[in-house]
Amino acid sequence: MISVAEAVDHVLKHAHILPLETVSFTSALGRYLAEDVFAKEPLPPFPASIKDGYAVIASDGAGTRLVSSASTAGDEPGGCVKPGECVRINTGAPVPEGADAVVQVEDTLLERSTEDGTTELEIKVMVAPTVGQDIRKVGSDIAEGEKVLQKGQHLGPSEISILATVGVTEVNCFRQPVVGVMSTGNELCEPGSGLVPGRIRDSNRYTLMAALREHGFPYTDLGIAKDTPDALLGMMRSALDQVDIIVTSGGVSMGEKDLLRHVLEKDLGATVHFGRVLMKPGKPTTFATLVHEGRTKLFFGLPGNPVSATVTCNLYVIPAVNKMSGSSSPQRTIVKAKASETLRLDPRPEYHRVVLTWTQGSQLPEARSTGNQISSRLLSVNSANALLLLPPGTAEKTEVAAGEILDAMIIARL
Amino acid sequence: MISVAEAVDHVLKHAHILPLETVSFTSALGRYLAEDVFAKEPLPPFPASIKDGYAVIASDGAGTRLVSSASTAGDEPGGCVKPGECVRINTGAPVPEGADAVVQVEDTLLERSTEDGTTELEIKVMVAPTVGQDIRKVGSDIAEGEKVLQKGQHLGPSEISILATVGVTEVNCFRQPVVGVMSTGNELCEPGSGLVPGRIRDSNRYTLMAALREHGFPYTDLGIAKDTPDALLGMMRSALDQVDIIVTSGGVSMGEKDLLRHVLEKDLGATVHFGRVLMKPGKPTTFATLVHEGRTKLFFGLPGNPVSATVTCNLYVIPAVNKMSGSSSPQRTIVKAKASETLRLDPRPEYHRVVLTWTQGSQLPEARSTGNQISSRLLSVNSANALLLLPPGTAEKTEVAAGEILDAMIIARL
Repeated sequence: MISVAEAVDHVLKHAHILPLETVSFTSALGRYLAEDVFAKEPLPPFPASIKDGYAVIASDGAGTRLVSSASTAGDEPGGCVKPGECVRINTGAPVPEGADAVVQVEDTLLERSTEDGTTELEIKVMVAPTVGQDIRKVGSDIAEGEKVLQKGQHLGPSEISILATVGVTEVNCFRQPVVGVMSTGNELCEPGSGLVPGRIRDSNRYTLMAALREHGFPYTDLGIAKDTPDALLGMMRSALDQVDIIVTSGGVSMGEKDLLRHVLEKDLGATVHFGRVLMKPGKPTTFATLVHEGRTKLFFGLPGNPVSATVTCNLYVIPAVNKMSGSSSPQRTIVKAKASETLRLDPRPEYHRVVLTWTQGSQLPEARSTGNQISSRLLSVNSANALLLLPPGTAEKTEVAAGEILDAMIIARL
Repeated sequence: MISVAEAVDHVLKHAHILPLETVSFTSALGRYLAEDVFAKEPLPPFPASIKDGYAVIASDGAGTRLVSSASTAGDEPGGCVKPGECVRINTGAPVPEGADAVVQVEDTLLERSTEDGTTELEIKVMVAPTVGQDIRKVGSDIAEGEKVLQKGQHLGPSEISILATVGVTEVNCFRQPVVGVMSTGNELCEPGSGLVPGRIRDSNRYTLMAALREHGFPYTDLGIAKDTPDALLGMMRSALDQVDIIVTSGGVSMGEKDLLRHVLEKDLGATVHFGRVLMKPGKPTTFATLVHEGRTKLFFGLPGNPVSATVTCNLYVIPAVNKMSGSSSPQRTIVKAKASETLRLDPRPEYHRVVLTWTQGSQLPEARSTGNQISSRLLSVNSANALLLLPPGTAEKTEVAAGEILDAMIIARL
């Protein structure tokens, strides 16, 4: 039996970054960049006004100006401002040649317009302008040739914004692994079918697929495998062509564990790195790898118990997917939290499902247990957004007191 | 000019929960329940073994038992255990009638098998069993008729698990609002097109759509509207039939703001609730509502500046979508964080983009500024996962010192 830290090390050691592929910037959300991205042009590409007002020559000082024309956002830069003249300009519009300052409309007076009042002819600048005032210079946001994103960077909405801004509509990212999700067990039936005596409905497959979808990870439904060597081997073999990671859950009885191990080691030539982890819940977790057509495929055998499957998915599967997708910090975020009640310690390190709540007046979030933590009790994971990391109990320390500060692993969007 | 708190109040007051719709449990992820969900059957639906071992009659005590048959997971419950007998059973299998305890295989000795060694005939129970030992009773996880999920509950992976478990494959959820995303401005062109003099590429639409997609919210791309009353009105009118919320960005010059306001108030009969908010960045944010075919539609006019658009989307649009989807706590999570450097205060309350990092040995996360915070500088939002809430500066307090503790609003998955 190995520790959780050792188990995570094994998983991350074998989760290799996948090759790159070219994707459209509109579908690059959540990906990791496989290349640096540079700006081909400066931003703004022309000197742009920051205010609604008048483009002037600063050295003309304060005083009256003839309004020679107007520059509106979207106009091609054109015209030329001569001494004593100005151009009506609005925010985002190109500052015409000759002008070196913008005076906001609030600092001017209208002196004369056309008889119909639609066009300004003369204005008065009330305060002497300074050179460059209220002008965004060419390249002041992004210089031409500047590196705007770097290899390995995660592409969130703001990074998608940068790709759009610099016009990079196709970009090289690391491929995301496809996760095949399978349940095993003769006792399982589909949620939509009527309940047959002796059977229970398969929920783990749907939970695991939902967890992957919530993260934006690609997955495929491999269905339910019967507990026979042929059924299991057949499903695994055909899955290996389509997916990078196989996640099964179920198969907790000794016979089933033996069967799975046999199929993995003897039939598929896989290496089993661990089969039991010192943790609660989730002890009977198996991790194996095998090389199929030149590529390392990962295999996770999660416990059949729904809560154990959720916990181990968060601890092992999500970090593996992150790492293979190109993340340099694939593990989940750990924060500090305060236990809201007394919690008994188990001899094993426990991952206790809690709801973290931040309240005004308290620096740390409060971790409220979601109740009954018996690992087969599904209802305990209701709305949990973190796993409280409880240390193993000892003769000296058998419980955590209310108010004690512990580590908590974030498992949901806060 | 109103405060951010007042602005949020306005938005949430007008963001009404949408009507319910029936959805499949496989597409219910991220939804809010519009009904309580009850279990039609108990779980487990039959007494199930927790161990691999033998189903026995406890009152038979320790000693030898005849092995009459076997019960495997997935078998229909059958047979009957008589005094002096037992049934070979594995984890998850139904405990046969007559038996009232399971003895794990580790606590037994094999006494006699068939000549070929494949079938056990007699075993010895080493420790006297107690009634109910290692049996999951019918309904011990979920009782028949028990409320397993409640109206208003958010459906994450664990709640999908519960739906699957109780066989509720169709469920009533509140409808999620569809957000129409539009950019306005004659100066905007598509990211994929060549750069024309005087134009810049539209990035906001893609950023906002990515932010919505990241949350799993439905949205539709309304394109770029030209700065003319007809173009704007035409696009808004046709959008109102398809969407619940219209989000535009751009239109920051006075002429554009006047145009938008005119179209909203005069042409569409909308009520503008606010047009300026005391905040940095994001001051020129407009919020309006109108009733279209009996339904309240929300309109957000976000600043054209990419960083301002991202900040105001997080402050106003995401909470509105949450509320309309049925969330009872639609606002973003606020945590405490420690400033990692001195930060100058603006006269306005500032939403300063930071990366929060939790390190071992420190109770609070450190908030590291993402650098240049000039609101037109896109690069500053790189990898920000929170907005640090800086109070307005005063004559007495002009800056925040390194190490000071402040509120931070979480804007990304941690």
